[in-house]
Amino acid sequence: MMDLSERIKKLNPYVPGEQPQDRQYLKLNTNENPYPPSPQLKELLGNLDADQLRLYPDPLAIKLREKIGERYGLTKEQVFVSNGSDEALFLLLLRFLRQPEGKLLFPEVTYSFYPVYCDYYGIEYETIPLGGRPDDLCRGIRAKERVLRGCLCQPERADRHLFALKGHPLSLGELPAGTACAHRRGVYRLRRESAVSLLRDCQNLLLVRTFSKSMSLAGVRLGFVLAGKELIDALATVKDSFNSYPVSSLTQRIGEIALSDESYYRSINNKIISVRESFSSALGKLGWIVLPSKANFVFARKEGAPGKEIYLKLKERGILSATSTE
Amino acid sequence: MMDLSERIKKLNPYVPGEQPQDRQYLKLNTNENPYPPSPQLKELLGNLDADQLRLYPDPLAIKLREKIGERYGLTKEQVFVSNGSDEALFLLLLRFLRQPEGKLLFPEVTYSFYPVYCDYYGIEYETIPLGGRPDDLCRGIRAKERVLRGCLCQPERADRHLFALKGHPLSLGELPAGTACAHRRGVYRLRRESAVSLLRDCQNLLLVRTFSKSMSLAGVRLGFVLAGKELIDALATVKDSFNSYPVSSLTQRIGEIALSDESYYRSINNKIISVRESFSSALGKLGWIVLPSKANFVFARKEGAPGKEIYLKLKERGILSATSTE
Repeated sequence: MMDLSERIKKLNPYVPGEQPQDRQYLKLNTNENPYPPSPQLKELLGNLDADQLRLYPDPLAIKLREKIGERYGLTKEQVFVSNGSDEALFLLLLRFLRQPEGKLLFPEVTYSFYPVYCDYYGIEYETIPLGGRPDDLCRGIRAKERVLRGCLCQPERADRHLFALKGHPLSLGELPAGTACAHRRGVYRLRRESAVSLLRDCQNLLLVRTFSKSMSLAGVRLGFVLAGKELIDALATVKDSFNSYPVSSLTQRIGEIALSDESYYRSINNKIISVRESFSSALGKLGWIVLPSKANFVFARKEGAPGKEIYLKLKERGILSATSTE
Repeated sequence: MMDLSERIKKLNPYVPGEQPQDRQYLKLNTNENPYPPSPQLKELLGNLDADQLRLYPDPLAIKLREKIGERYGLTKEQVFVSNGSDEALFLLLLRFLRQPEGKLLFPEVTYSFYPVYCDYYGIEYETIPLGGRPDDLCRGIRAKERVLRGCLCQPERADRHLFALKGHPLSLGELPAGTACAHRRGVYRLRRESAVSLLRDCQNLLLVRTFSKSMSLAGVRLGFVLAGKELIDALATVKDSFNSYPVSSLTQRIGEIALSDESYYRSINNKIISVRESFSSALGKLGWIVLPSKANFVFARKEGAPGKEIYLKLKERGILSATSTE
């Protein structure tokens, strides 16, 4: 295999999302939350003892991990925090997904960094086409079950990634809510919104989340992983062996405060859901094929209208979309 | 060579600095600044539009890089910013220091992450003993000149690392101010406090700095690299190929504000220098060997008193030091 630094020299660098300066755009291409974060943050920042910034952050982020754990009915030992979910994904792929057996499986349209990381690490992967109907993805993944080696992400939730590690026999559940899951004792149907409830029984699951979308905190770069203690310990070991840059103390504090304002976030997220549903339904009436979404965006396409054309027409009208330009 | 993830499994994780809970210690072991950061930060945080945290940070950190550039008489193209200087060191070693020729050279007592990174990347290294007198280090490095492959750090400045890349013939200057430097046209004597002035002539230099120490901002995790545009571009490409997590928008803003309060920082740093000098001189009178320091700490030893003993005696008296416990 090519030397690491040789491979790096050959990589195509990530290109940050388009930020044209020629006019003001309605910017939908990075899925930022249209609503501000918790109003309590204003107060936090105003009252913060800035003098304490002279001290290093708690490298273990104990309070924040406890707070995240509380939210999900887990202990801090089941929580790992990272500089955005990207750092978590990077460490997770590095630690768990380089085993030579099998391929990594993910949907064709997904987080654009998956193929980049795979190329970087030399991980083989296979993509599952997104069909016109939501069940196609589910069926596609089930048909590939024999080659599955352990990764699935949730294509319809921008802020959630779900990884199932090989090592236990895997069987895939259906995807009624845009969520794939794995269960070591057999097929599991996920009926709830969250996959957190699976962690009790699935020792091979890792859930990756971010504060960027539903918590409206893309600016602070905070992500986390939920999993069993054993997997979290393994991730922490990789992080501590590999880099020693913990999450900033300010970011830790902001995360704690945001988590305590559940009612505010519930209200803005209800608004997002309501707009998404009426938007999806309106698009459907216009003859668009719209995949059911649990996120703050929708996947939609129209027969005879190539992605690039839609993208350009929207741009002419001052709307930046993430529509494929290929 | 062993597979990357295999090597990772064998690594000894970094152990965060000692944080005992049994009593209140005077904590000197992580070299935090005893003075608070700029009072202007209080104001910034109080007036900050927290709503903007819903948006992703500028991935290119243009304003902050311009501000850093201004401070050092450079353009933003000569500045790279990172999540603490650790991220910069990690990317820099990954990109530049894996060439098979020669060894990496650094002082025996230095940033403890150097050997960790070297082990991780499989980089050969050699350490130069710290002698009783400052000139010993300088002489040691000069004697090894033939094997030098490109890295030096400044052992007496906690917040500065200086890298000279091979590719141009290297000659090492003396270290009158605890600073080693390389010059492609021959020996260069560094008389000034800062190595920034070398960047004009040395295409093979990278300077790594942090906001943690002299800017009293260890909590926000902000570091940067100064170098020629070509090297900065190469670093940015590695970062963008490798991870996509930019510095938080709040951290970028805090860095900008801190940089604009030069007079405050000059005053606290003068206080640190004055205490350091009187402390060093008092230790010297007690028969200690004290290396000249340009940082907020001193290296000191005493004949017949092993590091571990000094460390334990200080701890008994409520002072945590970074004295070697070996």
